Amino acid sequence: MSQPPTNFCSNCGAKVTLRVPPGDSFPRHVCDSCGTVHYRNPLMVIGTVPVWEDRLLLCKRAIEPRYGLWTLPAGFMELGETTAQAALRETMEEAKARVELGELFSLLSVPHVGQVHLFYRAWLLYRNFSAGEETLEVALFDESQIPWDAIAFRTTATTLRHYFADRKAGVFRLHAGEILPPK
Amino acid sequence: MSQPPTNFCSNCGAKVTLRVPPGDSFPRHVCDSCGTVHYRNPLMVIGTVPVWEDRLLLCKRAIEPRYGLWTLPAGFMELGETTAQAALRETMEEAKARVELGELFSLLSVPHVGQVHLFYRAWLLYRNFSAGEETLEVALFDESQIPWDAIAFRTTATTLRHYFADRKAGVFRLHAGEILPPK
Repeated sequence: MSQPPTNFCSNCGAKVTLRVPPGDSFPRHVCDSCGTVHYRNPLMVIGTVPVWEDRLLLCKRAIEPRYGLWTLPAGFMELGETTAQAALRETMEEAKARVELGELFSLLSVPHVGQVHLFYRAWLLYRNFSAGEETLEVALFDESQIPWDAIAFRTTATTLRHYFADRKAGVFRLHAGEILPPK
Repeated sequence: MSQPPTNFCSNCGAKVTLRVPPGDSFPRHVCDSCGTVHYRNPLMVIGTVPVWEDRLLLCKRAIEPRYGLWTLPAGFMELGETTAQAALRETMEEAKARVELGELFSLLSVPHVGQVHLFYRAWLLYRNFSAGEETLEVALFDESQIPWDAIAFRTTATTLRHYFADRKAGVFRLHAGEILPPK
C-alpha cells in the first residue's frame, strides 16, 4: 500500500501547495483555501512469528507486491485497534490461524518506504490453518526447510534470522533495527 | 494532531464515498472517479525518558492540546526516519537536549485516538537543555518532585510510573500495553 498523492485538499477539495508551515520544520501539503495542513506519517505493519512445535508458519502471498513469495502473517495496523490486536487479526486473516501472543520480538524501521514493521512471538493454539484471501498457501517449516530464496520482504527474512539465532542461543529478546534501501 | 476529514479525493479532487472495497473488511473512503482508496491508519508518537543522574527531564507544553502541562519529549514520527531517529529528533526539538538512546522502554497503544506511543530510555550527554518552540520550560525532576497532577498525557504518566517501578526493582524491561478511553 503506497500512500496516494496529495494534489487536492481532502477537506474542501481545493488544490494544495507544498510548503513549510509556520513553526514547522518539514514541508507539508497545505490548503490555502480552508487552512488544513495534510501530514503524511509512517505506517505500521504488524505480524507474528507463529510456532507449532519446532516449526514456523509462513504464508505464500496471493497479492502484489511479491506475489508468490513467502512471508510471516502481517499487515497494516488499522484505526481502533492495539498493536497486539493487529497482530492477532492479521494472523487470522492471512493464515486462518488462532495464536497466543508472546512478547514483541522485532521492531524494524524501513525509512525509505515510510514504514515500521513489528513482529510478535506467537504460538498456534491448534494445528489448524488455511489460506486467507490474500494468501495462496500456508505451511509449517522447520529451520532447514525455510525457503530463504523466496522470502517476500527483508523485514520477514531479518525476523526469521533473529528467531533462529535466539532459539539456538536459548534466549529471546527484542530486536530493534533498520532496513536500509536496496543497493 | 487529529487527521483531517476525507471528503474529497486527494489525488483527483472528486467527492469520495465511504464503503467497503472488494476484498477488504473495513469501510474506506473510495474515489469513484479515479479509483483511489484512501486508507487511514494509526500514527506513531515517539519520545524519550531522558535521565541526568537520578533525575528525569520533563517539558512544559507551549501548545495545545494540554498547554501548560508537563510531558516527556515526544512527537509524531516523520516519513524518512527510523523510530530511534524520531526519538532523538523530538528530544532535540522540544528540549534542545542531546541524549544517548537506550532500549525501547514502553509501547502503548491508544486505540481510541488511533495512536501508538513509543518511549526509549535515554541519557543526557550534557547538563544542557532549554525550551524548544513547542515548550514553555524544561526541568529535571527527581521522583518526589514529579508533578503527577499536571502530567499532559496518560502515556507519559504510565511510562513514568513504569520507569520508577523498574528503577526500584533494579531491572528495566519493555512495557507494552493499552490506554483505555477516559470514563
